[in-house]
Amino acid sequence: MEDMVAFFESDAFAQYLGIELMEASEGRAKARLEVKQIHLNSHKTVHGGVLFALADAVFAVASNSYGTAALAIHADISYFKAVTEGILTAEAQELSRSKKLANYSIKISDDRGNVVSAFQGMVYRKEKSPVQK
Amino acid sequence: MEDMVAFFESDAFAQYLGIELMEASEGRAKARLEVKQIHLNSHKTVHGGVLFALADAVFAVASNSYGTAALAIHADISYFKAVTEGILTAEAQELSRSKKLANYSIKISDDRGNVVSAFQGMVYRKEKSPVQK
Amino acid sequence: MEDMVAFFESDAFAQYLGIELMEASEGRAKARLEVKQIHLNSHKTVHGGVLFALADAVFAVASNSYGTAALAIHADISYFKAVTEGILTAEAQELSRSKKLANYSIKISDDRGNVVSAFQGMVYRKEKSPVQK
Amino acid sequence: MEDMVAFFESDAFAQYLGIELMEASEGRAKARLEVKQIHLNSHKTVHGGVLFALADAVFAVASNSYGTAALAIHADISYFKAVTEGILTAEAQELSRSKKLANYSIKISDDRGNVVSAFQGMVYRKEKSPVQK
Repeated sequence: MEDMVAFFESDAFAQYLGIELMEASEGRAKARLEVKQIHLNSHKTVHGGVLFALADAVFAVASNSYGTAALAIHADISYFKAVTEGILTAEAQELSRSKKLANYSIKISDDRGNVVSAFQGMVYRKEKSPVQK
Repeated sequence: MEDMVAFFESDAFAQYLGIELMEASEGRAKARLEVKQIHLNSHKTVHGGVLFALADAVFAVASNSYGTAALAIHADISYFKAVTEGILTAEAQELSRSKKLANYSIKISDDRGNVVSAFQGMVYRKEKSPVQK
Repeated sequence: MEDMVAFFESDAFAQYLGIELMEASEGRAKARLEVKQIHLNSHKTVHGGVLFALADAVFAVASNSYGTAALAIHADISYFKAVTEGILTAEAQELSRSKKLANYSIKISDDRGNVVSAFQGMVYRKEKSPVQK
Repeated sequence: MEDMVAFFESDAFAQYLGIELMEASEGRAKARLEVKQIHLNSHKTVHGGVLFALADAVFAVASNSYGTAALAIHADISYFKAVTEGILTAEAQELSRSKKLANYSIKISDDRGNVVSAFQGMVYRKEKSPVQK
């Protein structure tokens, strides 16, 4: 998990938002976010972009967990329930992985365990450069 | 446009990211973002979550431009080209609008005018409460 | 399940493709399709539109299982693996359901149990007319 | 356009549905479908799977127009308006194309020119085998 922690910590945007990595292993990752005022939209609920960014953070860790650079090429998110406060948790699961492409499903839950949003993401996997660690 | 500027300025997350509203009218909006270090991911390119949030900001303004609260229910984004610096511009266009649902297409361009990402979003339109402004 | 069988049997397109309903209950449905030559595309693999239609059939049954007309407003599909022959099975699971909106996740498997495609769909739920059954 | 007509004519499923190719050039394609009873769903409107298949047909022609096999990896569709009869027309436009990936936007219109559905699709472009035509 060390490499993945280092990978996550180098994600400036996830850090800026306050996302915390909880677990990571090959093809999987889990993170959390404590909702703060900066995470709200004009309707005073958690911003769709924040829910997306939280899901995206675990998507990035899970898809980059094999030592091959994985670049997001598509993602979509469905919003089920507005959230105004508390701790949000996102968990990534791998749906498929071939040499060049992989797919992940991420569920976001509120602190009562209700799934508030579902995210799917696809990556393109680059050849590992011989120099790259 | 005044109401829409006020609506946009009350979006705490868009403000936190540095997104600037450029234009807004019924069903349309345009915004920009100057790429900073906090917007980067672990690959040192602009974070997918930042591109999403920029598109989401104009999606929110365009869809809430009729005085009816519009709540995002689905969004998806395709990434065409990695960006590392400069000014990003997002522009929303309305694809459809009925009493309860509306759809928007957002294109994000880099400062050479290349489309780097395409976003589609759908909202559910709530009845305007008689009390609500 | 009787109502759902009747509902499914009135789906002319699903019948035209040869889709068979296997199971149905509130918020859930399962169907199968035996791959024939008419289901293939120009690359001689099962057509993306066939995989979509199979998933769509169980999505329709599951989302219309409560006696409220549910109209599809969005769907997306990711293709993991090309299929050329055999029996395909699609199974729908409900991710969320509120008064007006509901979301479903459908997985399509080949006859070895490999997930070859994942589909997500969202419906808008119409008020049940008092006259309607 | 000859190669693309041959490519389209080898699409067994598109033929089975009655889809007619109208135009094709590099990165673009247009097709039409006359709505028949077999295209309807249980609500007696044109089946979501039919709208998808029509869009998918032009997506396939447009993305395979460069002599490189293009395999669909993701597609999504938004439904704006139910259709019950008439001629549907789908037109594909290329949003981006790199060596391995390309993205297309397809709009489906009814016979009054109203856009009834919007589709986005992504392909993975395989290396052309030296043997393959």
